[in-house]
Amino acid sequence: MRLTDLDTPAIVIDLDIMERNLRSVADYTRTHRLRLRPHTKTHKIPALGRRQIELGAVGLAVAKSTEAEVMVSSGTPDLLIAYPVIGRQKLERLCRVAQETQLTVSLDSLSAARPLSDAARGAQVEIGILAEVDVGLGRVGVQPGEELLALVQSIAKLPHLKWRGIAFYPGHIKDTAAHGLEELEKLRHTVSQMVEQLTAAGFHPEIVSGGSTPLLWHSHTIPYLNEIRPGTYIFNDRNTILSGACSLAHCAATILTTVVSTAPGRMIIDGGSKTFSSDRLAGSSEITFGEIREAPEASFHKMNEEHGYIDLHNTTAQFSVGDRVHVLPNHICVAMNLHETVYGIRDGEVVETWRVEGRGKLQ
Amino acid sequence: MRLTDLDTPAIVIDLDIMERNLRSVADYTRTHRLRLRPHTKTHKIPALGRRQIELGAVGLAVAKSTEAEVMVSSGTPDLLIAYPVIGRQKLERLCRVAQETQLTVSLDSLSAARPLSDAARGAQVEIGILAEVDVGLGRVGVQPGEELLALVQSIAKLPHLKWRGIAFYPGHIKDTAAHGLEELEKLRHTVSQMVEQLTAAGFHPEIVSGGSTPLLWHSHTIPYLNEIRPGTYIFNDRNTILSGACSLAHCAATILTTVVSTAPGRMIIDGGSKTFSSDRLAGSSEITFGEIREAPEASFHKMNEEHGYIDLHNTTAQFSVGDRVHVLPNHICVAMNLHETVYGIRDGEVVETWRVEGRGKLQ
Repeated sequence: MRLTDLDTPAIVIDLDIMERNLRSVADYTRTHRLRLRPHTKTHKIPALGRRQIELGAVGLAVAKSTEAEVMVSSGTPDLLIAYPVIGRQKLERLCRVAQETQLTVSLDSLSAARPLSDAARGAQVEIGILAEVDVGLGRVGVQPGEELLALVQSIAKLPHLKWRGIAFYPGHIKDTAAHGLEELEKLRHTVSQMVEQLTAAGFHPEIVSGGSTPLLWHSHTIPYLNEIRPGTYIFNDRNTILSGACSLAHCAATILTTVVSTAPGRMIIDGGSKTFSSDRLAGSSEITFGEIREAPEASFHKMNEEHGYIDLHNTTAQFSVGDRVHVLPNHICVAMNLHETVYGIRDGEVVETWRVEGRGKLQ
Repeated sequence: MRLTDLDTPAIVIDLDIMERNLRSVADYTRTHRLRLRPHTKTHKIPALGRRQIELGAVGLAVAKSTEAEVMVSSGTPDLLIAYPVIGRQKLERLCRVAQETQLTVSLDSLSAARPLSDAARGAQVEIGILAEVDVGLGRVGVQPGEELLALVQSIAKLPHLKWRGIAFYPGHIKDTAAHGLEELEKLRHTVSQMVEQLTAAGFHPEIVSGGSTPLLWHSHTIPYLNEIRPGTYIFNDRNTILSGACSLAHCAATILTTVVSTAPGRMIIDGGSKTFSSDRLAGSSEITFGEIREAPEASFHKMNEEHGYIDLHNTTAQFSVGDRVHVLPNHICVAMNLHETVYGIRDGEVVETWRVEGRGKLQ
């Protein structure tokens, strides 16, 4: 099928750009002897997880136990659930996954660790544990220092759990310009201190897993860090560009839409919040929901579920009902979650059709 | 199954409140001799469409042709696609639906009407048409007056299309306080003029279809209006409360979540933008993504895909890891689109399990 025959709205992926993105991060981690564990929340497709493993990833990361059930079919030798797993049904699912592949969970409390130990004993499996640390985002994680040490000491005593190291997510560092670099220096100091304190207490972390997309290319400058979990790098999006971690040439995924109505100075496209999500541009006060690739000066300023409002006053481009435009989304991960199927494109031809098997897996 | 056994996050629907909502709008439209055509974008579940028909709705509305394919299984005698249908695949799907049930499409251009006429001729079906008018929102729709008359005259000449009337969506009128009432008065004037001008030109509209949730209970005061297409009223949400069209007691749907991490003054719940959507509260500058029913003073101020950040400084309520809280969402329609399954609750018991069959139907 030709791209021009694809019904809209549809996420279309430039396969050459995607492959280049996958290889460049794989090369970077190989050069710096970092373990690469891609977070599959971005693509949610087992076949793409398999490609990441082929290119050298040590394993994959997911957020929920239902996502783990989906992603185990990628054949990954090792899976990390990077989220505290709370609740009986989730623990049951998780233990079934642990019977199929090596499983590690990151968590930040004994309230999460004790039931997990009980469930693992019941299922006769051993589950790896990373102690989650809050390095400044204020989300999950214990505080570095005494709180971390106490958690690790407790985990080490629980049967059927194997403490493997620490995990953190420096999502509070938004860019790598002036302020970001100062924050990065603080992070280096925090990580050093944590690892040295744990080691001094007899707990040497085999895995120090961290990083975020904005900090991707700085990962090798963080002492002791030996594993990164980037997600967005496979496709990239407007937020990744803004963070400084990529340029437009590295954005593999756009959303193909059709113009359904026009009026002087404006047009409506057949995608709104159900197609793009309502995510704003991170760290920007501008209200914009995507960039029209055929008219970058146009303003995609408003949405309803099925309608995208495009203001055309700042562009000389002209559009008619039935015209098709590619939109670069703010945040590709949440957009992928909204689409049943996405399409891989090479030379104007649809050469891959992937079901987004991990979409909507909330539990 | 008890509500307490349900895995989280999950949308739970208080069936008594839902039934009361359905009945009160059905009663209102019966009293005022208005045709009720619920927009099913809110629930996306054929069984609930069937219930709306049982209670007296004349038919159902959908936005896309894939939604029409899903909703035809409700057994509705009449279906409106309230969206311009552009593109070959969509027209093919639409014509197959028209072979199963009476179908009407609202549209605003000859670029939409001509291919529809051609497709209907090919499939040997007749399709009803409402001319879509822009009454102030600046979305789809021709301008009232000459532009509308010209569109209706052209539609009337196209074979296999049957012009049935006009449709509009006054989504620019956000509330019914001072400013809103002034806008409502303008709308009454616009609708009167349109209908009288069309009738004078020999085109008497059989259907005058309009209204929005904020204006729901004012529908009978709009001259000539004889059909309304409310969607959100089945569940209601924080936006409906803000619009003045309902109170908290009419909100049937909440999202049950689990506390997965705590720290002094804050907690994290297991639902973020993948569970609630990123929709802000309409017409409010406050950044809030839902109201915690167990602690209404708490602030749900930030999200990532799987994490909801709750600030607890303004509440005396205390929570531990594993506690479950009900969250009233800003916008229930987009939240329904994110869930594979939703649950109907009566007296603490899960008595209905519905698959959200129409979720993700984008084309």
